[in-house]
Amino acid sequence: MKKIITFGEILMRISPIGNKKMIQSNTLEYYFGGTEVNVAISLAQLGNDVKHVSVVSEDFIGHAAKSFLNQYGVDTSLVTNSGYPLGLYFLETGAVMRPSTISYNRSNSSFSMMDPNHINWNAALDVCDWFHWTGITPALSKQAYQSLKVALQTAKNKNIMVSADPAYRKDLWKYGAKPQEVLNELIELSDIFIGGPNEINELLNTNFKNNTTGFIEGSKHLLHTFPNLKKIFDKTRISTNANWHKIKSRMWDGANFFETEQLEITHIIDRIGTGDAYAAGLIHGLLHFNDKKALKFANAACALKHTIEGDANLVLEKEIELVMNGSLTGRINR
Amino acid sequence: MKKIITFGEILMRISPIGNKKMIQSNTLEYYFGGTEVNVAISLAQLGNDVKHVSVVSEDFIGHAAKSFLNQYGVDTSLVTNSGYPLGLYFLETGAVMRPSTISYNRSNSSFSMMDPNHINWNAALDVCDWFHWTGITPALSKQAYQSLKVALQTAKNKNIMVSADPAYRKDLWKYGAKPQEVLNELIELSDIFIGGPNEINELLNTNFKNNTTGFIEGSKHLLHTFPNLKKIFDKTRISTNANWHKIKSRMWDGANFFETEQLEITHIIDRIGTGDAYAAGLIHGLLHFNDKKALKFANAACALKHTIEGDANLVLEKEIELVMNGSLTGRINR
Amino acid sequence: MKKIITFGEILMRISPIGNKKMIQSNTLEYYFGGTEVNVAISLAQLGNDVKHVSVVSEDFIGHAAKSFLNQYGVDTSLVTNSGYPLGLYFLETGAVMRPSTISYNRSNSSFSMMDPNHINWNAALDVCDWFHWTGITPALSKQAYQSLKVALQTAKNKNIMVSADPAYRKDLWKYGAKPQEVLNELIELSDIFIGGPNEINELLNTNFKNNTTGFIEGSKHLLHTFPNLKKIFDKTRISTNANWHKIKSRMWDGANFFETEQLEITHIIDRIGTGDAYAAGLIHGLLHFNDKKALKFANAACALKHTIEGDANLVLEKEIELVMNGSLTGRINR
Amino acid sequence: MKKIITFGEILMRISPIGNKKMIQSNTLEYYFGGTEVNVAISLAQLGNDVKHVSVVSEDFIGHAAKSFLNQYGVDTSLVTNSGYPLGLYFLETGAVMRPSTISYNRSNSSFSMMDPNHINWNAALDVCDWFHWTGITPALSKQAYQSLKVALQTAKNKNIMVSADPAYRKDLWKYGAKPQEVLNELIELSDIFIGGPNEINELLNTNFKNNTTGFIEGSKHLLHTFPNLKKIFDKTRISTNANWHKIKSRMWDGANFFETEQLEITHIIDRIGTGDAYAAGLIHGLLHFNDKKALKFANAACALKHTIEGDANLVLEKEIELVMNGSLTGRINR
Amino acid sequence: MKKIITFGEILMRISPIGNKKMIQSNTLEYYFGGTEVNVAISLAQLGNDVKHVSVVSEDFIGHAAKSFLNQYGVDTSLVTNSGYPLGLYFLETGAVMRPSTISYNRSNSSFSMMDPNHINWNAALDVCDWFHWTGITPALSKQAYQSLKVALQTAKNKNIMVSADPAYRKDLWKYGAKPQEVLNELIELSDIFIGGPNEINELLNTNFKNNTTGFIEGSKHLLHTFPNLKKIFDKTRISTNANWHKIKSRMWDGANFFETEQLEITHIIDRIGTGDAYAAGLIHGLLHFNDKKALKFANAACALKHTIEGDANLVLEKEIELVMNGSLTGRINR
Amino acid sequence: MKKIITFGEILMRISPIGNKKMIQSNTLEYYFGGTEVNVAISLAQLGNDVKHVSVVSEDFIGHAAKSFLNQYGVDTSLVTNSGYPLGLYFLETGAVMRPSTISYNRSNSSFSMMDPNHINWNAALDVCDWFHWTGITPALSKQAYQSLKVALQTAKNKNIMVSADPAYRKDLWKYGAKPQEVLNELIELSDIFIGGPNEINELLNTNFKNNTTGFIEGSKHLLHTFPNLKKIFDKTRISTNANWHKIKSRMWDGANFFETEQLEITHIIDRIGTGDAYAAGLIHGLLHFNDKKALKFANAACALKHTIEGDANLVLEKEIELVMNGSLTGRINR
Repeated sequence: MKKIITFGEILMRISPIGNKKMIQSNTLEYYFGGTEVNVAISLAQLGNDVKHVSVVSEDFIGHAAKSFLNQYGVDTSLVTNSGYPLGLYFLETGAVMRPSTISYNRSNSSFSMMDPNHINWNAALDVCDWFHWTGITPALSKQAYQSLKVALQTAKNKNIMVSADPAYRKDLWKYGAKPQEVLNELIELSDIFIGGPNEINELLNTNFKNNTTGFIEGSKHLLHTFPNLKKIFDKTRISTNANWHKIKSRMWDGANFFETEQLEITHIIDRIGTGDAYAAGLIHGLLHFNDKKALKFANAACALKHTIEGDANLVLEKEIELVMNGSLTGRINR
Repeated sequence: MKKIITFGEILMRISPIGNKKMIQSNTLEYYFGGTEVNVAISLAQLGNDVKHVSVVSEDFIGHAAKSFLNQYGVDTSLVTNSGYPLGLYFLETGAVMRPSTISYNRSNSSFSMMDPNHINWNAALDVCDWFHWTGITPALSKQAYQSLKVALQTAKNKNIMVSADPAYRKDLWKYGAKPQEVLNELIELSDIFIGGPNEINELLNTNFKNNTTGFIEGSKHLLHTFPNLKKIFDKTRISTNANWHKIKSRMWDGANFFETEQLEITHIIDRIGTGDAYAAGLIHGLLHFNDKKALKFANAACALKHTIEGDANLVLEKEIELVMNGSLTGRINR
Repeated sequence: MKKIITFGEILMRISPIGNKKMIQSNTLEYYFGGTEVNVAISLAQLGNDVKHVSVVSEDFIGHAAKSFLNQYGVDTSLVTNSGYPLGLYFLETGAVMRPSTISYNRSNSSFSMMDPNHINWNAALDVCDWFHWTGITPALSKQAYQSLKVALQTAKNKNIMVSADPAYRKDLWKYGAKPQEVLNELIELSDIFIGGPNEINELLNTNFKNNTTGFIEGSKHLLHTFPNLKKIFDKTRISTNANWHKIKSRMWDGANFFETEQLEITHIIDRIGTGDAYAAGLIHGLLHFNDKKALKFANAACALKHTIEGDANLVLEKEIELVMNGSLTGRINR
Repeated sequence: MKKIITFGEILMRISPIGNKKMIQSNTLEYYFGGTEVNVAISLAQLGNDVKHVSVVSEDFIGHAAKSFLNQYGVDTSLVTNSGYPLGLYFLETGAVMRPSTISYNRSNSSFSMMDPNHINWNAALDVCDWFHWTGITPALSKQAYQSLKVALQTAKNKNIMVSADPAYRKDLWKYGAKPQEVLNELIELSDIFIGGPNEINELLNTNFKNNTTGFIEGSKHLLHTFPNLKKIFDKTRISTNANWHKIKSRMWDGANFFETEQLEITHIIDRIGTGDAYAAGLIHGLLHFNDKKALKFANAACALKHTIEGDANLVLEKEIELVMNGSLTGRINR
Repeated sequence: MKKIITFGEILMRISPIGNKKMIQSNTLEYYFGGTEVNVAISLAQLGNDVKHVSVVSEDFIGHAAKSFLNQYGVDTSLVTNSGYPLGLYFLETGAVMRPSTISYNRSNSSFSMMDPNHINWNAALDVCDWFHWTGITPALSKQAYQSLKVALQTAKNKNIMVSADPAYRKDLWKYGAKPQEVLNELIELSDIFIGGPNEINELLNTNFKNNTTGFIEGSKHLLHTFPNLKKIFDKTRISTNANWHKIKSRMWDGANFFETEQLEITHIIDRIGTGDAYAAGLIHGLLHFNDKKALKFANAACALKHTIEGDANLVLEKEIELVMNGSLTGRINR
Repeated sequence: MKKIITFGEILMRISPIGNKKMIQSNTLEYYFGGTEVNVAISLAQLGNDVKHVSVVSEDFIGHAAKSFLNQYGVDTSLVTNSGYPLGLYFLETGAVMRPSTISYNRSNSSFSMMDPNHINWNAALDVCDWFHWTGITPALSKQAYQSLKVALQTAKNKNIMVSADPAYRKDLWKYGAKPQEVLNELIELSDIFIGGPNEINELLNTNFKNNTTGFIEGSKHLLHTFPNLKKIFDKTRISTNANWHKIKSRMWDGANFFETEQLEITHIIDRIGTGDAYAAGLIHGLLHFNDKKALKFANAACALKHTIEGDANLVLEKEIELVMNGSLTGRINR
């Protein structure tokens, strides 16, 4: 089994049932997630050996968070405890033209407030095939950023493949760092870039269009800027409304462009974590298949996540392969 | 804040969860609503000062009904109690080509059996910008009709703007009155008419077609018949099936015709109260914006209500404005 | 009232709520069903006098199973008890391109392990207008097959109309019998065949195409092979994905071909048991209407079942007739 | 099987889950019940052939009510439909020193508003071993009273055993009749009286104490007043609080006094319908056992009902016999 | 109506259903509460005019919090919004010898981080009969302490009655203040002290025993130390285990000792907020009755809260009076 | 961490919510358990390194079963898959004098039908401090018995401590073996016996009384009969009814008798698995403490399990120690 390490905040997601608003019901449901956790869980469900590195509260919430990851097959032996509470968010799920709304309570969390030296990255990455990070982590706090930087440097020294999902969300960057500087510094330590013209423009103040040409030109520009980067993988999403999306993926491997067919999700069950499902599918694909199949696998994984409740993609490899191979009618499997 | 008064029955809605039939589950959920209550709640959520006038049972059901209105910001200081039970209805929610079905239990209700002198309308309407009524109230009982008539006469004397939603449902008229006579009498005391060719034809035995020409001709005829009426606002609905509708609105201000773009609701969450959401959006719009913006606001409010569970529209002004301005993709609002 | 007898396993269906996976929630919901039970319940809801013959466990599960059938109007006086457990299946409900998945636990069930002499078919069929069977029953065990065969022979002797739904599922046939031989033997004792080219090809090793010509040619071949058979009724399904289907029906009465209009189900609530709803609608139609109306009634019944939660179709005759007559907008029925 | 007929209102009970107040949750659960229905269901679960006579609404609520009775084995072929709604009540369940509170909505119900000639009692009681009535029915409306009186006269003519549970609740008597006159008239047509000093004092304006002597003297007085009455059965309840009761039963057969041991219910699950469980246990006992055993059976049935959710007692004969015979530890039955 | 003002944090309480642990279920339920909020809600349910002063988040959680208070009749016009999240706590409910466990997430909350000048206390307290505070507020942050101090000084200047519930919880005091100093300073500005020997010992480093003599001696000492204080009210609790408590109350009015009878709660529904129910009952009693009746009312209110789910006491005045007057059997109120 | 291995069937437990009967609700909840699994989970929650050996179905039910164990910290790397279904049982939870009732569906399960050679016990037990078995396993099938026997022989060879819980349930032994012979053969391979006079009498056809003398005499006899056995630990239970038990424990270490204080559980939350909680507490105690403390720890663990929903004891070591040391009031832990 391939050994993968992820690093990031474990977030509790709390939401009213269905499309209700908080004000309408005193019943809630919850999941544990967080972008890197979602990647970790999906990779574990796909059969990989995944270890997540994080900090949780030392109470029954932290205990439940670790148990949740264990349940889905993620090793939590490198998740430590602290006196700060676990980060969480509330979600009101929208529909059609009404957006879902999220309210975060994470600025004071056990992860954000971590001791940047809390983890011995040299030991943690001792036997590892892949390390995945996203731009959420360096946005949360200086400590989180510092710890991630050490992790990436260590990974580079150990020749571990590193995938970067820049995931720039400007509202998160509150501790004083300059997002572009920080993200670019971290991308320099990475091998695989997950993103397209939108992300490239944000990082490099460029102005590539979000079409095939823009993707290719932007990718070339990005690879030129960060010579360490080897390949670029992106998905595009056409949203009719909150319930109805179309997903298509594309890649630039430094020399060739390839794109998948489009998958249409007419009745979305849960929109959260679909990008993480894409990243997990991609990492799994790159570890086990060739690039083209990896891209198609990632695209199908992303589409399937829209049919799964909760943050993480719980589908199995064979389910993704069926969709990847064109089985789209959803006929009952008796 | 604008001061608005509504008058009508508070109805309890009780239904099995999801699309289950009563026979299939012993779990139910409930809301308080009623057409005028739905208007009141929506107007309160939009930031107005709303007072609802009604009669409820003097037991824990009546207590819960008032608390429900308070929760959503509606003043219930003019809601009185009586020994009769609160009106209620059971709802089995349909899907696709299967209609939702409603079973009423309201003929004996605290509202229908009210003492017509129970409210001092002169005092109640002392400081008021807008009064809204629907054709449900005069259909319920002679007492309800009489009280409404006094309310409208009082409003006229005080130069309060009055909106009329004729909402003719022939099954409700059981106490002996002639619906047309009663409704026409009450429309004579109103300023704003909410309806189109269908409603006009029912009231005046005319035969206008339900298209743009019919709407304009019918509106002219209506304004001629009821010189007190100033403007006419209507929405049209195209139903593919119980889950998929399209909504579009139009107005005649005595001189000009205007219609909105069409909004498509591909995955309806709750169909009940969408007309009330329209009325509330319209009243809010007319109190705060110009007519065209009011119409567009009402159309967007109506569309958004299809995504809200329960009877009343709980969206905020800024959410409606986004949709009104073309933001239809429902992208997550983090 | 028409008297109908069905025979088959009562299966308990257990599933997580909504689209959750088992692993995601400790809350489940259940129904009792089974293909012939679903037919029985639907026929009882349509106003017929229906008796189901089966064997259940002698504990509180068996008691609940019988009570469930009683609740929906099915007579269970010929359901006996045994020491074996009731058969059951777990269902994870899919969405869009993700298939629903079923896990059976029925090989050791009270029905499969029945004493083939447990029922006096001569008495059971004493006053009976119609007997319905499906290919699930002879697939379960030798005992079930033997009992069914006696039932069919008895029905033939009594000139009771017999409908056959071959429902060939190869995974079920584990006790050593050859499916084709067994099914063909039983079809020889039947009058009405529910199926089309796919089923005919499976039974007779033919290769008819699944189009109108194939249906007509296959039907002719089938009627030639089984001269006892009088008419053939089939439905076709186009699946966009797990949530969106189109249904259309066709028949061959030995001389004429007829097909219905297509009904589109854009938001499926529950896919299970839609074939059984078709069979029930057909039997009801053939008992009460002419063939064409029966086919249209069956088609509408099948479409409506997609909007009903659980295994069995709970709609009433008048609801089906409305859809059959083109009322498809699902407007609220107040 | 013994044939028993009951007559009375089918009431829907709607309540928040657990000990919540209406105002605290929008989730409810419901049961169908009513005092005579509870007796009918319990007698059916005990293996008797029970037919309930009533009137329900002609909508999906009435359909669900009948299905509920069918589910528990009660024949509803003599339950007719009307345009009035089904009676219902809301329940907030108390705890310890906080009483449960009930809000009725039944004054306008399909049962109360029945046509007194709606049932052919001569045919209904044609083959019948026992008829049971309670004082709730004649309290509801003149029509209900008249129909019950015909039923009792018919039963007397046919020598059917009649049990009377006077159940005097003064708040119900709103249509103008004098409760004592009406109840005494009906008791004159009965054979078995279920009640003790409290009930006797209410009916006859006497002043017997609620102790053994009072019970014996009151019983003698009652039998003297109503020579048709043969035996008197009563239960006594000591309530520590809403969760903790003790139950003991006593009888006077015209010559002998007998009383049971006391059963203690330390953790009440549901208090509603425990008197009906007693009546059902008694009727079953008198039909199948001797008087003493019948009394002990009724006492145990009553105690066990406190452990069953909902209105009706769902325990089986063997479960009651175990408790009657002293098995009180509630050890798991694997 | 008496006008009462409370000031404190609105806390969201989130817990698994029943006695489940977080790890056991993904379904939660929530309430809004907080010690002073609980007092406010109970006082509003008792018919008083109550205004709560606080700061909440400016998102849908803060909106829901205010709506919750409105629902229960508390005026929130002085509740402002901030960019910090609402404080919350998770609760795992214990049973018998297993304690309930609480995990707080409030150190960074909108209330703790308030601007101490956010409220114009002079205006807020303009028309007010009673102000209530607890020791939780000054424990949370310097800003909260400062604001409370201004409130108390303003109240003193306006001769508003002030009740103090010291509620010392040492884990909360994290911002550097010395609890005793702060609390004593605030008690000097108060009139009514809610507490007994335990609280007095904590505040004054004394060593009074928790018996009648200790209560009287401690009270005398307290009144001597704080001459502004007029009366002291205390409740004592004997806990058999988490489900079974006994409650008794006592007072010292400067000259006389009085104590109530003991109330036994054998089946506790919810233990949270019972002290707040006591405070609310006491304030209501002191505003409307004499001291002795106030104490008995408070004791009964406290006992009844143990039967109510959620944080706040929702019983009505008449329900408390019944218990106060000895009605303890919890007989159904039809 | 101590390494412990358990072996046995993973059973799915499915039950209606609360005290409902199956017939009363279509909502269920489930847990995975089984006597040895319960021991494994509790030992993992107490901080030990626990591996469970078993066979599950190869579908999503088996996947969920393994995930459940992982969630609670049990290693499932030695749980294999087969084509048979997972064993399960339905539970109706009783109350007071009404027993809980269980319906098993396990005779055909993946565990019972295992290949006795499916596990390499030599490898499995390579590094292991403790092996635990119960009499349920050899009762299920010949294969299960054979595999267990090899396990015990291997453990003996490796000098691993073995605890035996005979748990004789005569209804389970259906495959032809003689329970006494089999159990005695397995006890000969064990070190610690969990049981008392009842179990000894069942195994050895003796007649020891269930009191202190009987326990001591029986223990001596047992140790004499099985010289390999070193110590005997037993708990006694006094059941007032299904909701109210008292628990006390005793031991005989070959020379000394010791017994604990009695713990009273007045409000039982879940009775299932309390014996397994005792066994887990005992094994943990014997691995970490002296015998007396181990016994007290086991007694407290058993008592606490009665307050935990589901099959397995989820309390932590510190919670058990508090109860063991006399903290019984269940005061909230903030």
